[in-house]
Amino acid sequence: MSVRTIEWRDGELLLIDQRRLPRKEVYRVCRNYRQVAQAIRNMVVRGAPAIGVTAAMGVAMGARHVRDPKNVEAVMRNVFETLADTRPTAVNLHWALERMRGVYEANRHGDLGTLQQRLEDAAVEMYDADIAANRRLGGLGAALLKDSRRILTHCNAGALATAGYGTALGVLRAMKETGMPLEEVFVDETRPFLQGARLTAWELRKEEIPVTLITDNMMGYVMQQNRVDAVVVGADRVAANGDVANKIGTYTVAVMARRHGIPFYVACPTSTVDLSCPSGREIPIEERAEDEVTHIAGRRIAPDGVNTLNPAFDVTDHSLVSAIITEKAVVTAPYRKNLRNVCVP
Amino acid sequence: MSVRTIEWRDGELLLIDQRRLPRKEVYRVCRNYRQVAQAIRNMVVRGAPAIGVTAAMGVAMGARHVRDPKNVEAVMRNVFETLADTRPTAVNLHWALERMRGVYEANRHGDLGTLQQRLEDAAVEMYDADIAANRRLGGLGAALLKDSRRILTHCNAGALATAGYGTALGVLRAMKETGMPLEEVFVDETRPFLQGARLTAWELRKEEIPVTLITDNMMGYVMQQNRVDAVVVGADRVAANGDVANKIGTYTVAVMARRHGIPFYVACPTSTVDLSCPSGREIPIEERAEDEVTHIAGRRIAPDGVNTLNPAFDVTDHSLVSAIITEKAVVTAPYRKNLRNVCVP
Repeated sequence: MSVRTIEWRDGELLLIDQRRLPRKEVYRVCRNYRQVAQAIRNMVVRGAPAIGVTAAMGVAMGARHVRDPKNVEAVMRNVFETLADTRPTAVNLHWALERMRGVYEANRHGDLGTLQQRLEDAAVEMYDADIAANRRLGGLGAALLKDSRRILTHCNAGALATAGYGTALGVLRAMKETGMPLEEVFVDETRPFLQGARLTAWELRKEEIPVTLITDNMMGYVMQQNRVDAVVVGADRVAANGDVANKIGTYTVAVMARRHGIPFYVACPTSTVDLSCPSGREIPIEERAEDEVTHIAGRRIAPDGVNTLNPAFDVTDHSLVSAIITEKAVVTAPYRKNLRNVCVP
Repeated sequence: MSVRTIEWRDGELLLIDQRRLPRKEVYRVCRNYRQVAQAIRNMVVRGAPAIGVTAAMGVAMGARHVRDPKNVEAVMRNVFETLADTRPTAVNLHWALERMRGVYEANRHGDLGTLQQRLEDAAVEMYDADIAANRRLGGLGAALLKDSRRILTHCNAGALATAGYGTALGVLRAMKETGMPLEEVFVDETRPFLQGARLTAWELRKEEIPVTLITDNMMGYVMQQNRVDAVVVGADRVAANGDVANKIGTYTVAVMARRHGIPFYVACPTSTVDLSCPSGREIPIEERAEDEVTHIAGRRIAPDGVNTLNPAFDVTDHSLVSAIITEKAVVTAPYRKNLRNVCVP
């Protein structure tokens, strides 16, 4: 793959430092679970599925460094707590930690070496499963978008947000791999953190997919000019009724797409669907630091003392979603019934 | 007034350098018409009415420096051409230059001193008339918005975009002056040039009006949260049917306002209404340099070689406009008939 986000290499974890992209491709080496927690907290790695897999590898790493079996319980309690504290509202992080905790509970009373191996196997399996799911949903998405040549996307739902391949960008990769003619991909820059300008534009150029970078407020103009056939975005969480929490600005993209008769697709693995959450109203919206709005690339742009708002996500009503592309199926309305059918094993 | 954008001081023109705001309040002194042209070209001064008034003062300055009456015609041809070339698609610039040309034509065969005085008087009169028009439209707007306490605006339609007082921000100033309770003004940062973050936030803070700065893609979220009572923006040009060309992103704001049942008002003097332009389709959209999108505050944010789009304006269909607030009247639909009634003397 052209973009390696996360790599488990003989007990060490390599992470591409997403804060430095696109100017520098720097890999951070995490040698213990505290360094993994630090990398999640500092946004070296971001994106819901990527954070989950990284945290799982942090758990494996924590167990690996236990020397005396008598210390296992104390160390592992620290490991789980430290990793859970990094991004308290991230759903995938907690989903991944719960799975790792299950493996730990099932093996904690046996041999230390076996426990360590099982946790490492589980983390690597989660990594492989994430990429495999993205490849499958990419293929389903490519089939769905077979008549679309000009796509708009928001934020980064790419290899960089997952173990690899990506969700929304996985659909574009699959389109490219199957020889579909991708004419133009419009990428919203996605203020305040600029994931579109910095990450998505960089990923798509690596894949030699034609990118046109626009500021967030140009999206409606591009649709008005009849230059977009379909929108594809990722998701941070999908509620049971199909409401979609995703990067701030997604809701506005969905409303504009509806106005212009452009299909609005959400691409995410079924692990992002939270059937315990009835609707978007119950999804808490993380409010981030105000210097992300008052500053860009470390430079202050706003006058001193100005008040700001910085919600990280917004919620798109399911009525605006044309389909949700998962690794198991393309889900359409009625979402409450159809998401349950697809997501409940 | 708390913000002086343009000041004619004994044959010299002082302009606040808008590129340096909000960090520095630096005034540029233009001592001849070439310096005035340079200031318009370099965006020291921006905003349709401000550019018009500045250009008129450039004409007066050009005439003032003629020593030998035999040179008047040659010099003035250069003056008009140089100023017209600075922003070729700006409507107000050409409107102002045409008015100054009329004064010139009416006085060119008389005494040089009289010509110089008439041109200076005409420029100063245009300056005063712009402020007076803004004060009147501000008052009409404040009456219209009497039940709105939470306003959203886009870009900068303030004192900095006009000779003074402002259009959209003139409405807010008038609301404040008449003691109306302005609870919160949401300001879109307005990428790529950041007029909202840099200029509007600065102006409103000077007036002690409560500002909340948001990135452009947060606007829909704020409306969804039921935090906006009305939208007020300026205009670069209004067509005969009421279609409004304004800063890129305005169209998206208007669509979102409509979705949420929020009135969308446009504030502009009647000189911005172009009855010779039948609809928005005939308004050319200036495409600006791509480094405005790939860079912020001088720093590159996007990967090298990425393609961009950079339309300076978009067109909002008149069906999305609740009213157009001018210095003569608040104009509502049907716009073709009502704009003509108000704008034709």
